[in-house]
Amino acid sequence: MSNILITNVNMIDLPANETVFIGIKDDAIAFVTKEKPVDFAVDTVIDGTNMLAAAGFVNTHTHAAMTLLRSYADDMMLMDWLQNKIWPAEATLGANDMYWGSMLAIAEMLRSGTTTFADMYFFMEETAKAVESSGIRAVLSRGLSGNDTADGKNTAENVQLYKGWHNKADGRITVMFGPHAPYTCSKAFLQRVAAEAEKLGAGLHIHLSETKGEVEDCLKANGKTPIAYMNDIGLFERPAIAAHCVFATPEEISILREKNVAVAHNPQSNLKLASGIAPIPDMLESGVCVGLGTDGASSNNNLDMFEEMRLVSMLHKAVKYDPLLISAKEAYDMATINGAKALRLENVGSIEVSCKADIVLYDIDKPHWYPKFNLCNNFVYAGGYGDVHTVIVNGKIVLRKGELLTIDEERMKHEVTKCVEKFA
Amino acid sequence: MSNILITNVNMIDLPANETVFIGIKDDAIAFVTKEKPVDFAVDTVIDGTNMLAAAGFVNTHTHAAMTLLRSYADDMMLMDWLQNKIWPAEATLGANDMYWGSMLAIAEMLRSGTTTFADMYFFMEETAKAVESSGIRAVLSRGLSGNDTADGKNTAENVQLYKGWHNKADGRITVMFGPHAPYTCSKAFLQRVAAEAEKLGAGLHIHLSETKGEVEDCLKANGKTPIAYMNDIGLFERPAIAAHCVFATPEEISILREKNVAVAHNPQSNLKLASGIAPIPDMLESGVCVGLGTDGASSNNNLDMFEEMRLVSMLHKAVKYDPLLISAKEAYDMATINGAKALRLENVGSIEVSCKADIVLYDIDKPHWYPKFNLCNNFVYAGGYGDVHTVIVNGKIVLRKGELLTIDEERMKHEVTKCVEKFA
Repeated sequence: MSNILITNVNMIDLPANETVFIGIKDDAIAFVTKEKPVDFAVDTVIDGTNMLAAAGFVNTHTHAAMTLLRSYADDMMLMDWLQNKIWPAEATLGANDMYWGSMLAIAEMLRSGTTTFADMYFFMEETAKAVESSGIRAVLSRGLSGNDTADGKNTAENVQLYKGWHNKADGRITVMFGPHAPYTCSKAFLQRVAAEAEKLGAGLHIHLSETKGEVEDCLKANGKTPIAYMNDIGLFERPAIAAHCVFATPEEISILREKNVAVAHNPQSNLKLASGIAPIPDMLESGVCVGLGTDGASSNNNLDMFEEMRLVSMLHKAVKYDPLLISAKEAYDMATINGAKALRLENVGSIEVSCKADIVLYDIDKPHWYPKFNLCNNFVYAGGYGDVHTVIVNGKIVLRKGELLTIDEERMKHEVTKCVEKFA
Repeated sequence: MSNILITNVNMIDLPANETVFIGIKDDAIAFVTKEKPVDFAVDTVIDGTNMLAAAGFVNTHTHAAMTLLRSYADDMMLMDWLQNKIWPAEATLGANDMYWGSMLAIAEMLRSGTTTFADMYFFMEETAKAVESSGIRAVLSRGLSGNDTADGKNTAENVQLYKGWHNKADGRITVMFGPHAPYTCSKAFLQRVAAEAEKLGAGLHIHLSETKGEVEDCLKANGKTPIAYMNDIGLFERPAIAAHCVFATPEEISILREKNVAVAHNPQSNLKLASGIAPIPDMLESGVCVGLGTDGASSNNNLDMFEEMRLVSMLHKAVKYDPLLISAKEAYDMATINGAKALRLENVGSIEVSCKADIVLYDIDKPHWYPKFNLCNNFVYAGGYGDVHTVIVNGKIVLRKGELLTIDEERMKHEVTKCVEKFA
C-alpha cells in the first residue's frame, strides 16, 4: 500500500475546464480537492491531464468463467443452446479451466473499466484465487441447484467458500450464497440454502423471472409468479440480489421494494437471448435499487459495462417513448454506486473521501470525446473500453497505460486456448 | 497508388486456424488466397498475424459535422431539444465550422472502422474537402427543405455539389440529393428536387417516418402515411435511401420493396430520441435492402458502427422473442455490403477480388477475443472500436497502428474547440 496522487484530472460531475487532485492513502480516497494539498506524502504521482476519473464499474451479475464459452454457440433457441451446446461443454470443465476462465474474465473486465463483479458459478475457489492475485474486487457465490432430497454437497461448498474467502484478499472478496433459480431449486432446497446463509450472515444472489416460459411454469407449479413465490417462502428475509426480473409484475415490484431486494439488470443478455425488456423505469420509480450486469460472456458476448450503461439509458426511452427517462447520469450511477449498493458494498462505487479507491482513468483526448460540453454525457453516450488508461482497485494500480500489471496475459491466453480444446 | 500484401490474416468467414493472403493493387483487391502468390510485386507488406481483416463499415446515415454538437444537449423532449438547443446552435455555424466538424467525424469514423459514410447536412463542399484529404469514401447530399415558393437556392447548392464533386477524389465521392423530410418539404418542392436529381442521374437521401407525431401529422395533412405519400408523389422513381422508417406499415414495406427503396436503420438514435423501434425483421423478410447508420453525433452520441451492428442483431430478437432473428453474420452484412448496396455503391463492402480495397485490420489478440470459436460472432458480439489497428480505403493506408496518417488530429481538436466557443 502506498500514497497515490492523481493531478489535474477531469471528473464526471464537473465542467471540462475544471480539474481536481485526487489523493489515495492505502485503500481509500483521502481527498478530492481543487488545489494541490501541501502536506500529502506521495509515493506515486499520476498525471491526470486529458484524463477523466470515474468510479470503476460494478458488474452486478456475471458467470466469469463462461468466457470459455464465448461465441461457442450463438443465435439459437434457449433450450437447444443449453442442452446441446452449453451444458455438455460445461460438463467437461474442471478446476483448472475455471481458474483460467475467471482470469480471462477479470483481464477483460479490468481492461474495460470494471473494478467489482458479482459472480455465480462453480469451482468458485478458483475464481477467488484469480480475484486475489489480479487485484479486482468481487462478490462470489456458488451456483446452487437441487431438489428436496439433494445431498447438500454444493451448499456445503458455498459454506466452505464463505469460511475460506469471505472478507479475504484485503477485504476485496465478499461471499454470498447462489441459489440458481426457482426452476432449478425446490422450495425445501431454497429454504435450506437461506438458512445456511442466515447462519453466516450472508446474502443471496439468484436468477428470477428471466423468461416468459419460466414465469408461466412457476405460476402453474406454485400458483405464483417467481418473485411473489420467493417472497412467500421467505427467501427475501436475507439481503438478496435478483438477476433479470424481466417479467416482474407491479405487485412484484412492490415486493422488491418492500423487502429491499436489489435487481441486477442485464439488458444486453436479455435482448440477445430474446428474453425481453425488463420494466426498469417502473422499478426505479418505485424505489427499487437497480444495478447493471453483463451476464456471462456466452450470452452477451463480452463483459463490457459501457454497453450495458449506454443501453439502459437508451432502451427504456424508446420502449416508453420518453426521452427523459434514465439520463446519462442515472445510467452512470446504476453502473457504479447503485451497483455497489445492490451488492451491499459500503464505500464502493464513488469518488469521494473515505470511499475505497476503485478509480478508472480514461483518455479523453480522442476524437470521440470532442467537443467537451458535458463529460458525463460523453462518457455514457460516446465513451468506451478503448479509452481505459489506468485502473486502480482498493488503492493499488492494476493497469497502467493499457498494460495489466497483475496478470500474465500471454500465459493466460495460452492456457485458455488449451482449456477449450476438449470441447472445441 | 501501390501494391499492398497483407499476410497470414484471419477472415470473418473462416475458422480461426485458417489465414489468408490479401493482395491489393491500386484501389482494388487483386486476390485473396491461402498460399502466398509468387508473382505479386509488393510495395508494402502488412503482417496480419493476430489480426482479423473485415470490410470497412458503411455508415448509411449521418450528419457528420453534428459532431460539433456532441453532448451539447441530451435527454430532452425532441422539440425542446431542437428549438431551444440544436437549431440555435446550428444557426451560428459557417463553412469553417463545417469543415472541422466533418473532419472530426471522419477521424472518429476511421478510428472505429468505418470507411464509407452517407451524409446529409449543409456547407457540403467543406465536407467534400475533408473527405478528399482524409481518404475516406462518402456519399454526400445537401440537406434540403422548402415550401412551394422556395427560391431553390439550397437545391442549386446540391446541383453545384454534384457538378463539382460527384465521382471526384479518385472516385471516392458520390453525390445524391438530400430532401430532408415530408414535414420540412412541400410536395412541389420535393418534386422539383426529384426532377433536378433525375436530370443528373442522382439518387435521393431522405428522412422518413422517424417519429409517431410526424406520421400522424402526415396522415392528417396528406391523407397518407409518409412512405406511401412519397410513393404517390413520384419520389421513389429515383434511386432512394430512406433513413429511419420506424413506423413503416406492412403496405409501406411492400412499397419499399417494389420501388427498391433502401432503408438506413439507426437503432441507437431511434432509442435515444425515444422514437421507437423500426420493424426491421419484417423489412428483411420482405426483401428490403437495409443498411445501418449512426445518425448525427448529437443524437447518438458517437459514430461507432459496432454499436449499431450489435444492436440490430440483439434488439429485434427481444422485441419479437425470437433468438434466431438477425444472426451475427446478417448484422455484419448489414453494416458492410448491404449498406454499400443501399447507397448504390458497386464493388464496395466486401473483401473479394475486384472489390474496392476498403479493409480494416483488427487486433484480435486482446482478452475479449478469446477463445476463438467463431470470429464473426466474436466480431459482432464482443469486438469494438478499440481493436482497430489498420485502415485501408480505396487501396491507401489511412490509419496504421492506431495513428491516423491523413489527418492532423492535434490541429483538428484545437480548431473544433474554437468552433464551438460561439455557442458553448
